[in-house]
Parts: sequence; C-alpha cells; structure tokens
Amino acid sequence: MTRTRLATSDDAEIVASMLHDFNVEFDTPTPGVEFLVGRCRTLLDAGDMTVVLGGDALRQAQDPPLGLGVLRFWPALWSDGFVAYLEELYVVPDRRDQGIGGAIMATAMDLARSLGGVEMYIGVDEPDVDTRRFYERLGFRNHDPDDPSARMFFYEREL
Amino acid sequence: MTRTRLATSDDAEIVASMLHDFNVEFDTPTPGVEFLVGRCRTLLDAGDMTVVLGGDALRQAQDPPLGLGVLRFWPALWSDGFVAYLEELYVVPDRRDQGIGGAIMATAMDLARSLGGVEMYIGVDEPDVDTRRFYERLGFRNHDPDDPSARMFFYEREL
Repeated sequence: MTRTRLATSDDAEIVASMLHDFNVEFDTPTPGVEFLVGRCRTLLDAGDMTVVLGGDALRQAQDPPLGLGVLRFWPALWSDGFVAYLEELYVVPDRRDQGIGGAIMATAMDLARSLGGVEMYIGVDEPDVDTRRFYERLGFRNHDPDDPSARMFFYEREL
Repeated sequence: MTRTRLATSDDAEIVASMLHDFNVEFDTPTPGVEFLVGRCRTLLDAGDMTVVLGGDALRQAQDPPLGLGVLRFWPALWSDGFVAYLEELYVVPDRRDQGIGGAIMATAMDLARSLGGVEMYIGVDEPDVDTRRFYERLGFRNHDPDDPSARMFFYEREL
C-alpha cells in the first residue's frame, strides 16, 4: 500500500538524490547531488516548489521514499485559483509499475484542487509512450478536446 | 518602429481588453473584460505576472499598446536562476506581421535574461503553423536537440 506525504526541507537530501538518479538514468545533464541538496532546500523552504513523496510506509522519517512528484503553482490568469505544473515525476527503477506514480499523482491532484487549482500542465516527450499513456489514463490530454489532430507542443529554448 | 515597455497595474484595462479579444477571436472561453481587469490588476500588483506591451510609440500613457506578451517566472530546479513561461502572446489583428510580436519577444527574452532566466517555455498548438515558425525562428524547439523525431508534448487537464 503506497503512502504519500509532502516533503519538507528536511527531505532535501533524498529529493536531490532521486532527482540526480533520474537525470543520470535518462542521460540528461545533472548539476550533481551536492548542488541539488542546496537548491531543493532553498526551494522547499521558500515554498517555491512542492514535492509529493511516495513509498511503502512513510510514517517515520527513516521510511525511504521510493518516488516523487515536483509541482509548481502560480495564480491563474483566466480565473481565480491556481495553475499547477508537474515538473518531474520519478519512481525508483525496481519499484515501477506498482502504483507508486499513480499514488503520487492522486495526492498531487488532490493537493492542487485543495489549493484552488484549476488546471495542471505536464510536458512529456513523444517517445515516452508508457508515460504518455499513464497521464492519458489520468485524464490528461495533449490535444484540443474538439480536435484530436490539433496537438499541443511544448517549445523551449535556453536563454 | 515598435517600442516596448512593461505594464503596471495602471495598464490593467488595456491588458484585459486585449486578452479578452484574443480569446473571442480564437473561440476560447473568456471570463469577460470586467473579471480580467480585476485579475490583471491583482497579478500585476503582486508581481505574479509580467506583461510586455508593444506599440508604435508607448512614450506617453495615451499611446495605445498594440500587442502584449504575458510571462511567468519561477526559480529553476536544476540550476540557480529562473524559468520563464510565455503564457500568452497577442498582437491586434490589423497590425500583425509588422514586427510587433518580434519586438515583444525580444524584450521578453532580454528581460528574462536580466532576471537570471535560464530557459523559456511556450505551449503552441500543432495547427498554428505560422506561430510555430515564428517561435522556431526565435530559436525555440519542440523536440529533443539530438532527435528531431522526439517531440515534446504539452499535456493538460482541468482539476
């Protein structure tokens, strides 16, 4: 039975460690655990980032989290309330496909709703078919609801 | 010659009016000008939204803006600095393709850099080919730099 809880800055080390492992696994540059520990502590302390942890027990500090979801919130333009952006979602490799990601997402969406969230955004790469299917099962769409051929692209550039 | 400046909450009415016209033109639901005036004033006053205005002169309060870019900033996770999200970009219909959008984007990117911005994100619909080409000319990509077939999708759901 997966449990979830919100991370505090006391969790900065395990959060940083999982984020680092995530990028190493997917051949994405990582600034390293040491940098990430400090960065996560700063962002968690400031309330600039919300991290949902998921794991088997998580009732005591020593129960290790087995996955995380990183969320950002900003006040919506088109309505009162907030937009939630799911920046990262990670589960340790040997515990995937066991409901941990789903439990983290359920908590993330409940939390977002409780904060007045009206929409949640996620960027997903086209080849990540399993990940896309996972989000689609949760009700996320990458196309205009009236036109499945009108997909929404995520553009980015370094500044 | 297009000039740009940052909106203050004194510009809430013109910002709201352009945003409303934007959604009406593209058959997107709009909460109406009256709501948007209040919302824009709140977000601009709080610093929760940055709006770049573009127009012919913009030296005096009565010079009308002819377009706008709406930006959100949040502190980056993977580095020091900020991520910038371009939420909306609009130019009044009879003044399109005259460099106003490009001037707004140049100011937006300069501003983001000056604030320590490391990346800028934009969501764009697949059928908006002209808009996509516009962002691509500005250096934005919707695919993995090493693999043009690996496009990045923007997923969303209401909460």
